[in-house]
Amino acid sequence: MTDLELMGKKAAEAKYRVQELSAREKDHALLAAAEALTANTDKILQANALDIAAGEAAGMREGLLDRLRLTPERIRAMAEGLEQITALPDPVGEVMERFTRPNGLEIEKRRVPIGVIGIIYESRPNVTADAFGLCFKAGNAVILKGGSDALRSNTAVAEVLRKALGAEGIPEDALQLITDTQRSVTAAFMKLDRYVDLLIPRGGAGLIRSVLENSTIPVIETGTGNCHIYVDRAADLTMAVNITINAKTQRIGVCNACESLVVHESVRERFLPVLAEALRARKVEMRGDERVREILADAKAAEEEDYGKEYLDYIISMKTVDSVEEAIAHINRYNTGHSEAIITEDPKAAEKFLNGVDAACVYVNASTRFTDGFEFGFGAEIGISTQKLHARGPMGLKELTSYKYAVRGNGQIRS
Amino acid sequence: MTDLELMGKKAAEAKYRVQELSAREKDHALLAAAEALTANTDKILQANALDIAAGEAAGMREGLLDRLRLTPERIRAMAEGLEQITALPDPVGEVMERFTRPNGLEIEKRRVPIGVIGIIYESRPNVTADAFGLCFKAGNAVILKGGSDALRSNTAVAEVLRKALGAEGIPEDALQLITDTQRSVTAAFMKLDRYVDLLIPRGGAGLIRSVLENSTIPVIETGTGNCHIYVDRAADLTMAVNITINAKTQRIGVCNACESLVVHESVRERFLPVLAEALRARKVEMRGDERVREILADAKAAEEEDYGKEYLDYIISMKTVDSVEEAIAHINRYNTGHSEAIITEDPKAAEKFLNGVDAACVYVNASTRFTDGFEFGFGAEIGISTQKLHARGPMGLKELTSYKYAVRGNGQIRS
Repeated sequence: MTDLELMGKKAAEAKYRVQELSAREKDHALLAAAEALTANTDKILQANALDIAAGEAAGMREGLLDRLRLTPERIRAMAEGLEQITALPDPVGEVMERFTRPNGLEIEKRRVPIGVIGIIYESRPNVTADAFGLCFKAGNAVILKGGSDALRSNTAVAEVLRKALGAEGIPEDALQLITDTQRSVTAAFMKLDRYVDLLIPRGGAGLIRSVLENSTIPVIETGTGNCHIYVDRAADLTMAVNITINAKTQRIGVCNACESLVVHESVRERFLPVLAEALRARKVEMRGDERVREILADAKAAEEEDYGKEYLDYIISMKTVDSVEEAIAHINRYNTGHSEAIITEDPKAAEKFLNGVDAACVYVNASTRFTDGFEFGFGAEIGISTQKLHARGPMGLKELTSYKYAVRGNGQIRS
Repeated sequence: MTDLELMGKKAAEAKYRVQELSAREKDHALLAAAEALTANTDKILQANALDIAAGEAAGMREGLLDRLRLTPERIRAMAEGLEQITALPDPVGEVMERFTRPNGLEIEKRRVPIGVIGIIYESRPNVTADAFGLCFKAGNAVILKGGSDALRSNTAVAEVLRKALGAEGIPEDALQLITDTQRSVTAAFMKLDRYVDLLIPRGGAGLIRSVLENSTIPVIETGTGNCHIYVDRAADLTMAVNITINAKTQRIGVCNACESLVVHESVRERFLPVLAEALRARKVEMRGDERVREILADAKAAEEEDYGKEYLDYIISMKTVDSVEEAIAHINRYNTGHSEAIITEDPKAAEKFLNGVDAACVYVNASTRFTDGFEFGFGAEIGISTQKLHARGPMGLKELTSYKYAVRGNGQIRS
């Protein structure tokens, strides 16, 4: 048995204990874990300083260093994240449906934990605490594989959390961190379907693709967003400017940011100059089709590939269409199934867009930036699913559960 | 673009039309398809005769030939299957949840089709019609890949169904059949995640493993069942005999049949002789541990691997335990997450078993044979899921859908 298989086995054993815990026991453990994080701030910062020094020595860019860097405030925020999870209702045990069959069998559909959840993530060490907290509250054991840049920080955080669990009489193996940074170990992790029930990659498109291609564990794809705003012929154009600017520039590096504008021909001439002024003021580069460039002399020509790109930058692509149907077809061709918005005062166009666009979240007259577990009222999220199986859109605690059928009879046999 | 990619593209185009169809339109098309099957009985039988002849020439076993063989009655049953689907409620469009956020955003969680569903199956040609019917009623397009033994039969059935769709003004490409039997094509099908949203393998453990290992499309595992009956110390022993005999012998080749008996030490001496008599009468081979063999002289010694086996045959493994906890641990070690039963009059033991056993369907005092879409009242099923993501247990129409969030605002932006 390899080290990794042993981890899988331990997680699979720990899951039976975690799934039996009451909401009170889980919340108590989460509060103890939060306290332990704060109490061990120095230890975690020391570990983090080594990661930062190694990153600097390797010439890591400032943006990445910033994601990697911990401070007392950021550790406090991690602890608060765990505390906030205790306020969320425990999804485990909920009776989702109950029905009786003509033969007298009483069937109950019960919400149960998934079991063992694997998470592969990149730089940010706070994911170690966040992901553990959500999976644990939903009654699952976790195996985490963080980025090698953050190995020392993640190890320190995981050790603190494990000890806190142990002190509560909960198996420490409810949280395990893979510390072997060899690629072959990550590859083997993706094949650990004997022990791991769900694998969630959190990171860029490359990581997600690699997991999809190599995993034998069921995967939930998260977080790539090529989101569009479609400004319909019946749009309130002031609202359209406000929403586009918000969705594009309020925070550029996030998956629910707008990457592409689709504009109806009949409002092109009135809308684009006003929008462009606001975009220029925020130094957003514009890349448009010919009809856009007729109006906006400073827009670059959009290449075909621009329409499929998640820029995560101060760049926006722009496309002109002649109907809401064409807008829907364009969006369905290039989007990533994340979040799409129509700006319109026409209820028929709105309904057509809501029905026709194939995405987790489809908006009428609101910014795509609302696709978020907190904004949806889920209290927290483990990610935004862009696939259609199991969970779509923001994934909160419920999305980290499965169900089982509990069937009670009095001797029924099948004839 | 390869032929397969072209099929994917066509399916992805057809899905937009299928997802817009009303329940009435879908039901009308299903009835037309059912009628077309009956009307084309001769044509389908001719194609099937060629498959049968080829099978016989290749020395195919009678059991497999029987699965492959069509008769007017079996074609009529296929047609009736489609007719029955029209009686089921359309799941598409159901509002699953609706809530308003403090900022005024109105969020509606709507049930929507999954999109394009791929199904890979083995011998039986009736799956071509059944799988199409269920997926279509749930608003999906399908790409089917049947066994090469049944290629001519499947092609004939698919052609009839496609023409019936076309005559209803529905894109024929809502149903496509892969007719290229090269392994490389099947392998490429499993990687068609650009167009296919869900892949369901229907067949033996080898097929399922191959799909899990090679697919980049989300997969739902179905249909391997190593199901246990646990006879508790507080069991009604007459009921235990009836249920065990039913679950083991009522139909041996199905995934919800019992493969293994677990018996509490304290009832071993009273229960096993009575059960064994009934098993012997039905020519069931018994393979037990030492404590079983002390009682049953004719039981063979069970090897470790017996406990992990889905026999699908007149064989049963038998294991003695000293507690319900040991029974649960034994079952969780060897089961496939399908269906498990406890026979007991003790409510505490029952609840412990219901909570502790990790399986899609857990029974108290009833046969595992009830794990079935019809028996659960779902009207039909596409398979029994043994995984925890998306769907668990019998998968009916609802399990062939996803959801989206439709969000309505009046200009909300994120601050």
